[in-house]
Amino acid sequence: MTSTSDRAPRTYAYLGPEGTFTQMALDAWAPSAGATHRPCGSVDAALALLRAGEVDGAMVPIENSVEGGVSATLDALASGDPLVVVAEVLVPITFVLAARPGMARADVRAVGTHSHAWAQVRGWMDANLPEATYVPTLSTAAAAAGLAGGDGEQAAYQAAVCAPVAASNHGLEVLAEDIGDNAAAVTRFVLVARPGDLPERTGADKTTLVLFQRDDHAGGLLELLEQFAVRGINMSRLESRPTKASMGSYCFSIDIEGHVLDERVGEALLGLKRVCAEVRFLGSYPAAHGTAVRVTPHTTDEAFGEARAWLHSLRA
Amino acid sequence: MTSTSDRAPRTYAYLGPEGTFTQMALDAWAPSAGATHRPCGSVDAALALLRAGEVDGAMVPIENSVEGGVSATLDALASGDPLVVVAEVLVPITFVLAARPGMARADVRAVGTHSHAWAQVRGWMDANLPEATYVPTLSTAAAAAGLAGGDGEQAAYQAAVCAPVAASNHGLEVLAEDIGDNAAAVTRFVLVARPGDLPERTGADKTTLVLFQRDDHAGGLLELLEQFAVRGINMSRLESRPTKASMGSYCFSIDIEGHVLDERVGEALLGLKRVCAEVRFLGSYPAAHGTAVRVTPHTTDEAFGEARAWLHSLRA
Amino acid sequence: MTSTSDRAPRTYAYLGPEGTFTQMALDAWAPSAGATHRPCGSVDAALALLRAGEVDGAMVPIENSVEGGVSATLDALASGDPLVVVAEVLVPITFVLAARPGMARADVRAVGTHSHAWAQVRGWMDANLPEATYVPTLSTAAAAAGLAGGDGEQAAYQAAVCAPVAASNHGLEVLAEDIGDNAAAVTRFVLVARPGDLPERTGADKTTLVLFQRDDHAGGLLELLEQFAVRGINMSRLESRPTKASMGSYCFSIDIEGHVLDERVGEALLGLKRVCAEVRFLGSYPAAHGTAVRVTPHTTDEAFGEARAWLHSLRA
Amino acid sequence: MTSTSDRAPRTYAYLGPEGTFTQMALDAWAPSAGATHRPCGSVDAALALLRAGEVDGAMVPIENSVEGGVSATLDALASGDPLVVVAEVLVPITFVLAARPGMARADVRAVGTHSHAWAQVRGWMDANLPEATYVPTLSTAAAAAGLAGGDGEQAAYQAAVCAPVAASNHGLEVLAEDIGDNAAAVTRFVLVARPGDLPERTGADKTTLVLFQRDDHAGGLLELLEQFAVRGINMSRLESRPTKASMGSYCFSIDIEGHVLDERVGEALLGLKRVCAEVRFLGSYPAAHGTAVRVTPHTTDEAFGEARAWLHSLRA
Repeated sequence: MTSTSDRAPRTYAYLGPEGTFTQMALDAWAPSAGATHRPCGSVDAALALLRAGEVDGAMVPIENSVEGGVSATLDALASGDPLVVVAEVLVPITFVLAARPGMARADVRAVGTHSHAWAQVRGWMDANLPEATYVPTLSTAAAAAGLAGGDGEQAAYQAAVCAPVAASNHGLEVLAEDIGDNAAAVTRFVLVARPGDLPERTGADKTTLVLFQRDDHAGGLLELLEQFAVRGINMSRLESRPTKASMGSYCFSIDIEGHVLDERVGEALLGLKRVCAEVRFLGSYPAAHGTAVRVTPHTTDEAFGEARAWLHSLRA
Repeated sequence: MTSTSDRAPRTYAYLGPEGTFTQMALDAWAPSAGATHRPCGSVDAALALLRAGEVDGAMVPIENSVEGGVSATLDALASGDPLVVVAEVLVPITFVLAARPGMARADVRAVGTHSHAWAQVRGWMDANLPEATYVPTLSTAAAAAGLAGGDGEQAAYQAAVCAPVAASNHGLEVLAEDIGDNAAAVTRFVLVARPGDLPERTGADKTTLVLFQRDDHAGGLLELLEQFAVRGINMSRLESRPTKASMGSYCFSIDIEGHVLDERVGEALLGLKRVCAEVRFLGSYPAAHGTAVRVTPHTTDEAFGEARAWLHSLRA
Repeated sequence: MTSTSDRAPRTYAYLGPEGTFTQMALDAWAPSAGATHRPCGSVDAALALLRAGEVDGAMVPIENSVEGGVSATLDALASGDPLVVVAEVLVPITFVLAARPGMARADVRAVGTHSHAWAQVRGWMDANLPEATYVPTLSTAAAAAGLAGGDGEQAAYQAAVCAPVAASNHGLEVLAEDIGDNAAAVTRFVLVARPGDLPERTGADKTTLVLFQRDDHAGGLLELLEQFAVRGINMSRLESRPTKASMGSYCFSIDIEGHVLDERVGEALLGLKRVCAEVRFLGSYPAAHGTAVRVTPHTTDEAFGEARAWLHSLRA
Repeated sequence: MTSTSDRAPRTYAYLGPEGTFTQMALDAWAPSAGATHRPCGSVDAALALLRAGEVDGAMVPIENSVEGGVSATLDALASGDPLVVVAEVLVPITFVLAARPGMARADVRAVGTHSHAWAQVRGWMDANLPEATYVPTLSTAAAAAGLAGGDGEQAAYQAAVCAPVAASNHGLEVLAEDIGDNAAAVTRFVLVARPGDLPERTGADKTTLVLFQRDDHAGGLLELLEQFAVRGINMSRLESRPTKASMGSYCFSIDIEGHVLDERVGEALLGLKRVCAEVRFLGSYPAAHGTAVRVTPHTTDEAFGEARAWLHSLRA
């Protein structure tokens, strides 16, 4: 992800349309300033552009503090040509209820939004618009877009749940603000790229992996987690995802604290590579929280270096 | 779940409308024969009826072999008044592309279906209808319903992806059969009830739990899994779900092999209860596959009984 | 080990002869006051008297801070009719070099003592009597006794390494005091009895076990230790002892913190009983150090009680 | 341990005197043929000669199938200048009861031998010479020597328990053969040398280590054993030995299967070096049994090599 001044302008895909939280994430990611931002209709579409070499990176959602992992992203990264995460961005999630100017809240009989957004405003809806029916849309921004323009008059819903920016983009009026049931909701986005230069170590890094077990024996997951524990590595996310082979066959999407260049992470990867059917490396990158990883004294690079020098002397 | 001949007819809620795979699951569950089947617009709605005592049980999807865990169900069971699973049903998933009679496949410009179904037919769509856009609907059956009747003419899509039964229910014509990308796709449904009599032990049982960690320390999950491993208990499903408290705070939805009345399961539950902030028991019930759990000789009820008699003699 | 005032006087065997550190341990054990103390020529002999019902208890050494476990005791307790430890006593080990009155240190050409004592004064000997040869004796007290009386003139050695009390018992002169290489040396003795009433719980208890593995598979010991770890039980001693079956076949003699009446200890014993070929319970008794066992909040009896009540409610 | 034809003859120390089982072990070790064999009065003395460079190696006992670890050897190797094991020899242990010609078994009132030998013939003695008292000697061979020559007439015992060769060396008559209680008794001896060239890998190797824990926390030993388990390494011996610092402070003397040049062993050593206060490497050498170590497919050198190549590609 080097950025040289004499190269052509970069292009980044994102899960669109304009006005999505993903766009906000891409805007918030400093290296994207001055680059072309290209909305895509789906995570798959964004990653397909990236794999095809038509864009330099893609911003996609990976995890929501309320809804959990984003399956489309997890699955798209776990198969196909290798891609790696090079950065992550956290975006607080704030929903508004928006409608065409002049619409009264009392006249809202149906509400359009993405199903994940709907799940996050159910409490507010039950309390304030208990009679309203739900109309699914492709994204929160699409719900807002559907109300705007001439088509809006025939839309199957009278109000949209979307980001404030989507409402203003489309000239909608905000009927209610901050309607999310969880005020602290946040979504984590990742900037994905084709494998290339590794992001530098910052001391506050994450590494993302997908682990496929060799066979589905009892205690199999325990064996994988021990590879981290024995090297003092903390795990910050674990998602199981079906391998699609059969009911009950899962792989594990995992974030650990540390960088692939850290000795302890490297050795854990060696261990996993040996015991797993497949280990998919999805990148090492700076953690958005910026807090340095706490490393016990005997798992520092120095401790590994001293141990290796000692082993070398024994073998000489 | 006793069933006495002199009781009033039972009522079971399910995730509707008619024609969903969930209805097929409820129909396939023998004890529901002769009972009233009541469709609901959402998992939450079905479980609300159950918690309110208006129905005797609810059939809801919990896991799909391709799409993974069903978040709405996992989350609804993990909070609120206690409910328990008393049975599970596996339904093979077969999708058709259906349209109003007379519609040619070539004229299909948009396709309506539930987002989970759409994810499972993307391969077929890319190969056969690459230009078609996707219109989300509340369910696969709703997509079919949307095409039927007078409204169908104004529907935002010309074809629906749904179960064969939904197509025939609504008088639609099947344009293509078996369009799922994964021929072996299957969805697992659970029949949920209010806590009451435990289903009897069959020797081929499952127990479902939700575990909330006491604190989020390194190796925390390892500690929980060891409670199973040390008693020779196999885990057949592990899903992490956000507790919604903050990014990175997860609980674990887990299926293990065995019944709460099994000694080894009981002791593991004791261990979990002590080390977890909360353990939510979601029931013990016969596994749909019907294969007896393999128990090592030293974790049988007999082995526990002998050990307990010995301990008793030491303490006497 | 109840002690009623109207019973006949008790008799305790000990590893003699008079003047051994074992006698000091028996004297230091309050309940032996007023009882008959009976010296025996070996640990086996003392325990044989106990098993035969001829004495009420036997004081024997089990562990020395410098020399380690006392094999004769460990092996005698690990087989034969069951015996249990009911108390432990720690005795600081102080050695003197003693000789018949008038003998000069310069004239000492050979030194008699027990081999364990010899191992603990080798440094002093090398520095102060480098030319002296070593003559093994049955005990340190026997070395002193050998110098005394008429026989002493023909003894194969001119000085004995023994306890101060043995020197004074036999009218010997102390040529050098505190000649042990390790000033903090201490030996741990145990009062062994036939199984009967358990010593009461004090909160500062130990439990002694001998574990025989079911088969000698890789990771077998790990599996046993996990039975303690998963219940938060600390291990204060681990000795491996050959089962005598074949080279490399070992059992494990273990001390853990806690009493068999503690819930967490009871459950660990249940686990061991199930996974081991044999578990030999060698008693629960107050630790000599008197420091209360540190118990984590989730392994207290209360935590077990609450968990059990919860499990009972699930099963009801 | 290279052996070039033009070097001066080698000298090996052993635990003497002549006629000990240790001498038999040294004789059985092929590379000692033609070398000078030098008896020493103790294990410490033999290892002191080796450390001083006066001999090329020392044969000492380390483990007996009935009596367990040989503390003197374990402790002498665990401290002081580094030494390494380069070979091991197993010697079946056969004891005879021997006396001066003409002595009748019925006239034996006292029996001399080393305390470890005495422990191994107690059953025979109780059955055949129940009245005989025990006189400790420095070694079994010393017991035989004590009966021989002019001194024998004044010896404190009339018969010796020793190896057949010691009886014949000293012109004694065998009163009873094969008097060991355990017919399969065997002692394991090790040939110790100063650190130098490592013995070559044979595929049937052992590595001996002494591990000192960083602090004596609960589960500390578990943490060490996991370093082996996570790399599929089997442990064939574990002895705890006091560090002599205080009661309850132990180090662990361990044999594992494999050679320090094996990748899995090297990585385990790295792990131990990091988590232990000290790791003392006591050599890698061919196992006497000659049976190749069973290595699981994912812990072979090839598996490590492939994993390392993969990690290298990720980091490049």
